[in-house]
Order: sequence, then structure tokens, then C-alpha cells
Amino acid sequence: VSNLKLSVLGNGAAVPTAYCNPSGQLLTFEGNQFLIDCGEGTQMQLLKHKIRYRKLENIFISHLHGDHYYGLIGLISTFHLYGREKPLTIYAPADLEELIKHQLQVSKTTLNYELRFMHLENYNDDPLFESDDFYIKSFPLKHSVPCWGFVFREKPLLRKINREFIENKKIPSEQIVKIKQGSDFVDSDGVTYLNSQITIAPRKSLSYAYCSDTAYDESITKHIKDVTLLYHEATFDNSMETVASEKLHSTASQAAQIAKNSNSLKLLLGHFSARFKDPKVLLDEARKVFPNTFLSIEGRTYLIENK
Amino acid sequence: VSNLKLSVLGNGAAVPTAYCNPSGQLLTFEGNQFLIDCGEGTQMQLLKHKIRYRKLENIFISHLHGDHYYGLIGLISTFHLYGREKPLTIYAPADLEELIKHQLQVSKTTLNYELRFMHLENYNDDPLFESDDFYIKSFPLKHSVPCWGFVFREKPLLRKINREFIENKKIPSEQIVKIKQGSDFVDSDGVTYLNSQITIAPRKSLSYAYCSDTAYDESITKHIKDVTLLYHEATFDNSMETVASEKLHSTASQAAQIAKNSNSLKLLLGHFSARFKDPKVLLDEARKVFPNTFLSIEGRTYLIENK
Repeated sequence: VSNLKLSVLGNGAAVPTAYCNPSGQLLTFEGNQFLIDCGEGTQMQLLKHKIRYRKLENIFISHLHGDHYYGLIGLISTFHLYGREKPLTIYAPADLEELIKHQLQVSKTTLNYELRFMHLENYNDDPLFESDDFYIKSFPLKHSVPCWGFVFREKPLLRKINREFIENKKIPSEQIVKIKQGSDFVDSDGVTYLNSQITIAPRKSLSYAYCSDTAYDESITKHIKDVTLLYHEATFDNSMETVASEKLHSTASQAAQIAKNSNSLKLLLGHFSARFKDPKVLLDEARKVFPNTFLSIEGRTYLIENK
Repeated sequence: VSNLKLSVLGNGAAVPTAYCNPSGQLLTFEGNQFLIDCGEGTQMQLLKHKIRYRKLENIFISHLHGDHYYGLIGLISTFHLYGREKPLTIYAPADLEELIKHQLQVSKTTLNYELRFMHLENYNDDPLFESDDFYIKSFPLKHSVPCWGFVFREKPLLRKINREFIENKKIPSEQIVKIKQGSDFVDSDGVTYLNSQITIAPRKSLSYAYCSDTAYDESITKHIKDVTLLYHEATFDNSMETVASEKLHSTASQAAQIAKNSNSLKLLLGHFSARFKDPKVLLDEARKVFPNTFLSIEGRTYLIENK
């Protein structure tokens, strides 16, 4: 079972409806939780769908249109009221820092935890967040205000050595790491064992990319090559391609084209315009271009897997 | 049937729960709609409970704690995206004006309608809003930041003249108004008809008061005398009276005491602390002091009537 999971909290566009909330999703990988965008009501969506978020330490805000960040100050306040002490880091366009500070100042609130702001303008290809096992990078999207996509990539996993071989050959531990990384092994008699003979390949590393909001932009694909799951905005259907282009949003077919061109394994559509009470038309159009497409469903948690 | 109605959208305190949203309510009187407070998710609550708010032109924000206003910018944005043209007036503490402008500036939004800010600091006993039929006033509450309560009062209704008497006596129209206002009538023969003989009293004027957030404060009562319905915060139960006092909130019993001392007809409790999964304890305690007490229920619309 995969340890990489995505909970979709809101899949609507700028205007909320009775069935679609503004953007927000929680990405979980082993002990780590990352919130990507935080539209109004994101904290209520977490409560409603019983999604725990106690481990949350990093929040990523794609851009400063309200449907992607109006819920952030409420979440910050709730953490404060519940006595949070550990720091919270917010990766966002620089302007958000002053705005959040302005909001806290108006209510005369001094948070009992540290709020760290990291400005997306300052990264290029540098990771925003990195651990031994994975990293998260941002990349520019094409929207009416500065806007970034995010890609999570698990680092390449080590090869697995045949356990019997380790025991028979009494391989020293420093050699084990090297073999796992791909080295051949030479035993005390000078016999060489090729790495391919004594190890098996690990599973493919998992990855996830978030692209919202953006016009169709072929240059995105180089940042999200081969991802396991791509979430791409699909605000409009084919009939509204001109509107999409004017408003710097995408059609479902365009999202599918990005999935295809980036060699994504699976595509999840979201950011549906309020006009689609049933976004099935978006699914149908996208599947003609990229069959492994699905509509995101609010409150659902998706396992991100190599299949 | 009364034309004065209150829809409760959120009855929770600072921290939202799976069952309580932050403060927000819609007061409707004939063709007028007034939103009182606008915590995060207020616009979603309106959608969820299918409460139309197209006639909304005036919003009242009691104070600048987030659970009373974080949803305002989202509502302002939604009106903009739906092409609103008529002005929207916001009665709020002065600091809110700069904050909302800051938020609009960050997203480079120029609203296609006029946003008018009226600062609560500038009114004393002057009405915030007045029509021929009613007025709305603010009054100070006792909280940790400047905070105002609001009272809606229908103006005294005119007396009703016996229809047969009007027809028989062929009363000129300018006299009719005077009689309705309480004057006696002298006919062409010089005969005087006492007002009490020819008219009947109108129903009692309706009124509504909103008191949240506030510590117990006897001085509130003079502003809300004889209201038909009082909504008063009841954050805590009797066992937490000291906490209530420290945090400048009220217990349910204190809310009931205010209802009793102000001679309110009916009391609706709200602003329940997240610790009360079932606020029935608050109801029981309040009813010992003021029997005509009810727990507010989210999504419910209450007719405000003289009974």
C-alpha cells in the first residue's frame, strides 16, 4: 500500500457552490503532511471529512486569488486557539506575509507559535522542502497573477539485495549501502558479482504535481515529467476554449494534453467552474485525450500508486 | 405571519467544529436583508441552507475577532464575480476598511460595485440605518476588543381606523393619517369622536437584538429593552463563570439574566464553545433564569413574533 495520499478538500473554482468548495488539498507522505492551497472553509472541510491534520507543518499557497488562500487566516487562528507551539511554514507569494500580519494585528493577536513565511519568488529550481526521502519544488504557471505549481517527488529508492546473499557472503555494512546504490561486489576471493545479479530493482518512486490555476502551457510539462499523479485545473469544457484562454484557465482537454505530454500516469481534474453541476462533460472530453483521467471528489483521499 | 425573520448561519465560538460554524446571521424584514457578522464559511452556509441573499445591501460586523469577519472578503469577492453593481455598505470597526482594501489590492481586484465603509466608532445613539418603518442602532458590548451589539426596531405602527367609520364620515385623507397617529376626529357638525372610539391599537412593533461577543454587562439592558427576540452569546456553562469573566464572554445563565432584566420576550442562545457537543446543559441553565429560552440551530430561520 502506498504511503503517499492526497485528500481533496475543495475542487471548485472562484465562486463556491452548494456542491463545490474553493481549492485546498492535503498531501500526506508517511509522517509528513502538506497543505496545498487553503480556500475559504478548508478547515471546515477537514473537520467535515474527519481528516486529521495534526502533523501539518508546511503550507503551500499557489497564488493570491482568494479562492486559494482566504481560509488560511482561519486555520492559523485555530492552531493558535488550540495552543499550537511548533512552527508553521507558509510557502507563498511574498505579498501574503504582510496581509496575514495585518490580519493578526487588527485582532491584536500574538501567536503562541512561530509563523515562517517563505517567498515563492525566491526559489527557482531549488526545492522548497527537502528530506532524505523526497523533495517539493515549485514552478511557474501561466495565470493572471503570479502563480506557481508544486511537484512532490520521492527520491530514487535503493535497490534490494538478495537476503541470502548478504548472509552467505557476510557483506560488511558499508558495502551493503553501496550495493543498494548500484555498485558491484567483489568478495574476499576476488570474485566480482554484478549488481544486477545480486539485487532487484526497487519500486518506482512516487510523485505528485499540482497545477492550478493556469492557462494551457506546454512549458509546464518539463517540470512534471513522469509524475504518478497530476492534479490539473479544468475550469472549462471544449466549448469555452476561448474564454479559458482569455481568463488564463484551462479546458479539461487541455489538462489531459498536459498529462499526456508530461507522461503522467494518472490525471485528476479539479477547479470546476460553478456552471457545471455535473462535471462529467469535462471527464468525457479529457478521456478522449488521456484515458486515465478522473474527476476529483471532495472529501475523498486518493492513494498515489504506480498503477 | 411576521415579516421579520432571522436565519442563523453559525452558532459556534472561535474554533469551528464539525457541527458549529463561526458567527453569521441574516435578518430579513420585508424587502430588506441585513447580514450580522460573517465568519469563515458564511457564504457556504447560505448556499447549503438554500437561503437567498440577493437583496443584501448592508452588513454589520460586531468586532474584529476572526470568527466574526473572516468570511467577509469571500462574500465581497463572490458578489464581484457574479457582476454585482449595486453598492454594499459595511458597518464595522474602522480597522476593517484598510484590511479589506489590502486584500483586494493583493489580488489586484477592482470591484465592479461600490463598497461603502461606515465606522461603528462614529455612531453613538444615532441609528446606523433608518427607513420609514424601522431603524438599526449599535451599542457597546464588553469584550477584549472594541465590540458592538445591534438592535433592530420596527417603528410604532399606526392605529387602524374602523373602515365603516371612514366611509360613513367621508374623512379627508389628510385627517386619516392624523387619526391613525392618535388624533381625535371632529366632524362637520362639530361632534368630537375620541381616537379610542374610532381606532384599534396596532400590533406591537417587532424588534431584535444581537449581543455577541460580551461579558455579562447589566448596562446592555437599557439598549435592548423589551425586544421581541434577543440573541445573546452563551459561550460557557455555570461551572465556567470565572473563565467567562476572564475571557469576556458570558455563561448561558448570564445571557438569561440579561434577557430577563431587559424584559425580552424570547431568548436565543448561541456562540457555543466547541467543548459542548450537546449544548443542552446551556439551555437547562438558562431556562432556570428565563424560561422562554431556546438554543439557536444552524440553518434554521426563526420568525420573530409577539408570542
